Amino acid sequence: MTKLKWGMIGGGEGSQIGPAHRLGALADGLFEFSAGALDHRPDEGREYAQRLGVATDRAYGDWKEMLEGERNRPDRIDLVTVATPNSTHFEITRAFLEAGFNVLCEKPMTMTVEEGEQIVRTAEASGKLCAVNYCYSAYPMVRQARAMVRAGEIGKVRLVVTNFSHGHHGDAADAENPRVRWRYDPAMAGVSGQFADCGIHALHMASFICNDEVETLSADFASTIAGRALEDDAMVNFRMARGTVGRLWTSSVAIGRQHGFDIQVFGETGGLRWASEHPNQLIYTPVGGRTQIIEKGESGLHDDAQRLSRVAIAHPEGFPLAVANIYCDLADAIRGQSRDGLPGAADGVRSMAAVHAAVESASNRGAWVDARPPMFR
Amino acid sequence: MTKLKWGMIGGGEGSQIGPAHRLGALADGLFEFSAGALDHRPDEGREYAQRLGVATDRAYGDWKEMLEGERNRPDRIDLVTVATPNSTHFEITRAFLEAGFNVLCEKPMTMTVEEGEQIVRTAEASGKLCAVNYCYSAYPMVRQARAMVRAGEIGKVRLVVTNFSHGHHGDAADAENPRVRWRYDPAMAGVSGQFADCGIHALHMASFICNDEVETLSADFASTIAGRALEDDAMVNFRMARGTVGRLWTSSVAIGRQHGFDIQVFGETGGLRWASEHPNQLIYTPVGGRTQIIEKGESGLHDDAQRLSRVAIAHPEGFPLAVANIYCDLADAIRGQSRDGLPGAADGVRSMAAVHAAVESASNRGAWVDARPPMFR
Amino acid sequence: MTKLKWGMIGGGEGSQIGPAHRLGALADGLFEFSAGALDHRPDEGREYAQRLGVATDRAYGDWKEMLEGERNRPDRIDLVTVATPNSTHFEITRAFLEAGFNVLCEKPMTMTVEEGEQIVRTAEASGKLCAVNYCYSAYPMVRQARAMVRAGEIGKVRLVVTNFSHGHHGDAADAENPRVRWRYDPAMAGVSGQFADCGIHALHMASFICNDEVETLSADFASTIAGRALEDDAMVNFRMARGTVGRLWTSSVAIGRQHGFDIQVFGETGGLRWASEHPNQLIYTPVGGRTQIIEKGESGLHDDAQRLSRVAIAHPEGFPLAVANIYCDLADAIRGQSRDGLPGAADGVRSMAAVHAAVESASNRGAWVDARPPMFR
Amino acid sequence: MTKLKWGMIGGGEGSQIGPAHRLGALADGLFEFSAGALDHRPDEGREYAQRLGVATDRAYGDWKEMLEGERNRPDRIDLVTVATPNSTHFEITRAFLEAGFNVLCEKPMTMTVEEGEQIVRTAEASGKLCAVNYCYSAYPMVRQARAMVRAGEIGKVRLVVTNFSHGHHGDAADAENPRVRWRYDPAMAGVSGQFADCGIHALHMASFICNDEVETLSADFASTIAGRALEDDAMVNFRMARGTVGRLWTSSVAIGRQHGFDIQVFGETGGLRWASEHPNQLIYTPVGGRTQIIEKGESGLHDDAQRLSRVAIAHPEGFPLAVANIYCDLADAIRGQSRDGLPGAADGVRSMAAVHAAVESASNRGAWVDARPPMFR
Repeated sequence: MTKLKWGMIGGGEGSQIGPAHRLGALADGLFEFSAGALDHRPDEGREYAQRLGVATDRAYGDWKEMLEGERNRPDRIDLVTVATPNSTHFEITRAFLEAGFNVLCEKPMTMTVEEGEQIVRTAEASGKLCAVNYCYSAYPMVRQARAMVRAGEIGKVRLVVTNFSHGHHGDAADAENPRVRWRYDPAMAGVSGQFADCGIHALHMASFICNDEVETLSADFASTIAGRALEDDAMVNFRMARGTVGRLWTSSVAIGRQHGFDIQVFGETGGLRWASEHPNQLIYTPVGGRTQIIEKGESGLHDDAQRLSRVAIAHPEGFPLAVANIYCDLADAIRGQSRDGLPGAADGVRSMAAVHAAVESASNRGAWVDARPPMFR
Repeated sequence: MTKLKWGMIGGGEGSQIGPAHRLGALADGLFEFSAGALDHRPDEGREYAQRLGVATDRAYGDWKEMLEGERNRPDRIDLVTVATPNSTHFEITRAFLEAGFNVLCEKPMTMTVEEGEQIVRTAEASGKLCAVNYCYSAYPMVRQARAMVRAGEIGKVRLVVTNFSHGHHGDAADAENPRVRWRYDPAMAGVSGQFADCGIHALHMASFICNDEVETLSADFASTIAGRALEDDAMVNFRMARGTVGRLWTSSVAIGRQHGFDIQVFGETGGLRWASEHPNQLIYTPVGGRTQIIEKGESGLHDDAQRLSRVAIAHPEGFPLAVANIYCDLADAIRGQSRDGLPGAADGVRSMAAVHAAVESASNRGAWVDARPPMFR
Repeated sequence: MTKLKWGMIGGGEGSQIGPAHRLGALADGLFEFSAGALDHRPDEGREYAQRLGVATDRAYGDWKEMLEGERNRPDRIDLVTVATPNSTHFEITRAFLEAGFNVLCEKPMTMTVEEGEQIVRTAEASGKLCAVNYCYSAYPMVRQARAMVRAGEIGKVRLVVTNFSHGHHGDAADAENPRVRWRYDPAMAGVSGQFADCGIHALHMASFICNDEVETLSADFASTIAGRALEDDAMVNFRMARGTVGRLWTSSVAIGRQHGFDIQVFGETGGLRWASEHPNQLIYTPVGGRTQIIEKGESGLHDDAQRLSRVAIAHPEGFPLAVANIYCDLADAIRGQSRDGLPGAADGVRSMAAVHAAVESASNRGAWVDARPPMFR
Repeated sequence: MTKLKWGMIGGGEGSQIGPAHRLGALADGLFEFSAGALDHRPDEGREYAQRLGVATDRAYGDWKEMLEGERNRPDRIDLVTVATPNSTHFEITRAFLEAGFNVLCEKPMTMTVEEGEQIVRTAEASGKLCAVNYCYSAYPMVRQARAMVRAGEIGKVRLVVTNFSHGHHGDAADAENPRVRWRYDPAMAGVSGQFADCGIHALHMASFICNDEVETLSADFASTIAGRALEDDAMVNFRMARGTVGRLWTSSVAIGRQHGFDIQVFGETGGLRWASEHPNQLIYTPVGGRTQIIEKGESGLHDDAQRLSRVAIAHPEGFPLAVANIYCDLADAIRGQSRDGLPGAADGVRSMAAVHAAVESASNRGAWVDARPPMFR
């Protein structure tokens, strides 16, 4: 089986997300790193791509050059990852889709709902894949949770409670650090800070595991450090289409929380709990029974969880392999095998609709608002 | 030092809270169990009290008989614990205060804010103690948290996040069990179910550790099991007097959570976390530093935490000793030594104001409302 | 039901074990604190006893005075707790047994095997109870483990692994502190340091849960801090009568371990794990199945575990209540109701035999030796 | 930078270790999978290698064919991984070293000490790398522990305690399963079962973190399931060259333990703890101070730990990335940059010497024996 050809835009030297994408794309030997425009500084980007093994003529200075370079090659890339600053996702993703490339876009897919709906339509028109990197959904135990809910193993879902809290922006002395500041500056981050950055992972996870969609929400935002125009802490209550009650807390000033992303799902006949810092276990309690620990890789898992358990039980698999699972599913999808769990453009636009709804609600003292994109109402 | 004399109303055979009060009152040898009206069935109550060592003439059939019996004795009880059904707390507590007894009332202290304000005034007029059993506040590590906040060790508090979730009412098949049903029936439970039952512990804890009071709140209530008139799940956002943002989730349908009462406090220079299921540790992270585990009984604790650490470090102390700590503080207070941490009638009325505010907000789609009792506005 | 009368020898002001015994004896209202000789300094002991509520004429200066004072009283104590320095346990326990008192002796019961055998015989001759305070065995979840093993729920026990490690003697700068030093000085501590101090708790626990006795052992001792004549770290391998393999590690220089007492029991059809720092849970895995968390107080526990679960599920119960459970069982036993789990003089002498066997083995490069007292061979 | 060429022997379809090696070798894009003899069934091996992207002419039927095929190619592989049955490691590793290939050999490197010493000498003579896959040593937090010990941050090491226990061979009904049985059959597994299989990982880890070597040991072996000629449970006490006391327990019948590999290191001024199931944290306690949690990727780690922290703090990295770290170090070493932490043939022969010493000790009732290979005495 020959490898698929993969390119990346963004993810330059020193970026956080670049290494995760490279590890994810390469780990299974399904893709080769064939092209890249890795840095907003053209020379640095070209040099870094070559250092990573990309051929000289495919180490590009920017995404437009890459689009032109790749579009007419017979050996053009099969997939491009867009890992650039958020405000550029829309333009780049749309352009590559229109040129007939499959795209994996970092979240948030776009800045507005309208842009998001355009991407959905462009992807449909192109017949190409547009995936969004909600990579936490690709942990085996998250897939197990989703499959258990689908199979009715906890009954109708009454309640989902999810948190994504960290404290890495909790130091006021560090608030002017450009790597922190932009996230709370509307000129760069758009309408929302922490909710758009981390909260949408949690909101997507709720939909993903519950097999359901958010319909309405009410939000309370707070900016706890002086000078922040956007929220660094948010609470969002929501309701899903099948009546499930939702609670979502996200914070970047929760000093001591490192990566406090977790989710609890409570149904009529059982409860589930999963935490991203210990991703290889899923905690399950049948109503009236004892709490059980479900281990990644144990026998009897649902198919999708078993398939994505790579190494033996209790040998932990972490974030890079979750990203790799996204790439595995993408490789399968590119080759024509549909993969149910793969987050797509519809998920991306739903997130943006939720972000804008939360902003609207928070600025209206928590009024309940419709959280759906117009196209899905 | 002679023992103080103690009586209890309610807490009959098979009750959950009775054993905790008896263990708490007796453990330190500060009180003797001198009088009781333990059951709504007079004979059963008298018999049980005698079995527990109460003298025949002080084993009463009901609280009125006990009030009459005790009020004129030269050796009358120094403290009465009111552990009867919630709707009777007000009447009994008021009567005993008026007769000059010190009272420890179970929560909720009253059913209405007006009653709560009456208790505050009655206690003031009587010059007697009226404590409310927010016993979680008496765990040594909770006292340590409060002292750390007071001493400025985490800076100004930005955010407090607290949960009190369990799943013991999550079985729909069990919902008609009278021990469960009354909690969701307005005729018996009043205006609120889970928030009044468990949420107010969490709300009190937030005030207690933050040394601050809740001013406004917005609530989202849900009844996830058919036939429940009152909420079994609630989310309350709040703001405190000094600007702290608060988040409180409480649930009784969180299947798999046994006693999920925890609190996180985030300040300018550090974060704290405490969980009631592992009460002997306090987790502390200084901003920019490593997470540390503070152990009950370690050297260098704040005074109140040190005083209430009874046995050697890492020998766990649990719920009965937390209740015992309340009784220790009460014994000291009865003997004239003021104890700062002891929850009082003001705490009781604040809780009722918050309950009514939450109900009002929840029935107005989350409108923000004043959460303070009129007397403290 | 009138209270039993209780006296204590040792446990003076500032002692570690005194508060645990007082909380344990008083918590359930089964005993009243009637007599005491609490300190090796007679006046301090008398004064402290009175401060704790003991009548003047029963606040004694030493144990001999107490023995004389109590032996002829019509209201003499029903139980005496011996919590004096280890080397005095034998003499005091024997004298009180001979005078017809029930005794709860702190561990180690004696310094030699011969003394231990004398105590067993004296107790038998007197017809009185001689209990030894292996109080960890009275945690409800330890009783549950014992009952599960008895009921065959994990099949024949193949292997038991237990640790009791702490780091409180790990600071060489503190080694000359008299509170630490005596433990490693043969003149005061006898033949063994850490193994006799903590290891025997673990060894008793292994026997207790497995319902079996240690027959042979091989030991490796180490003194890791210069100047210590006795071991501060020990590993003991053993075999039990029914063939179970045992492993026991104990240390006082394990810096960072606070109270690392845990036990794992592995049988043909399942495994169990319990840890003293989180005593309210028992971890159970059936062979080929998922790990389950058994909670103190859950429905369906074995009788003894249910009986000793005092407050509601997930309200933690700690060390003082484990001691209280010993006192509850003693009160029952004094009143004639036999209590199977109560550790007795036979347990005490078995511990001393194991200590002496371990010393012999360790000084013979780990030779396997008989660990049983001659009377039980 | 062009990729290095990599080949694998063994690791065929369905093997446990194959996927870990492929993920490890490919994840960083440093190697390409150029050659393989993956199965003892030639056709299956050739077919599977091609399916994984190996060119037809380099998909070999067995290792000898591969050696012949590769040795004269100008583009011959830069590294071969030997992941065949244990008894074949020696012959294959020696042959490839002699032919001038770099080798990564799975553990155990050989079956006898003599073979191990031959490999050491062959590797020296060839000037090629011979690494052994003690991959747990490549977790960032293990490197951090090693660096902390080296830097004197816990003082002189007094004591190291390590366990590697699991329960996956604890089902007697499964004991005749060929995947389990061979491990306890001397004809296939050699002189030792569980100690040779898992214990040597723990023993290597002790040496690795302590920067020291095992000199003498005493072992107690047990076969807890009828019909097993080799041990399924072992306890090994040891002493290291600088006087450190060691304790090592390993078991395959510890039902409920999934991958209970952990290590605790106690020095004069602090203690460390690491567990393979939660590999991204290192627990550190300074003497007299509070326990701290060191997180993978936090600022201020030692160089080697920082270098191998791939993605942002608290994004877990698991077993496949630990293996990838071995391959990264190998790639560096092949390119001439020495990597201190890379386990080599000397580690391999030390393990075999320890295995044989443990067997000798266990069959002599725990006699203390020299655990060093003759060449290192």
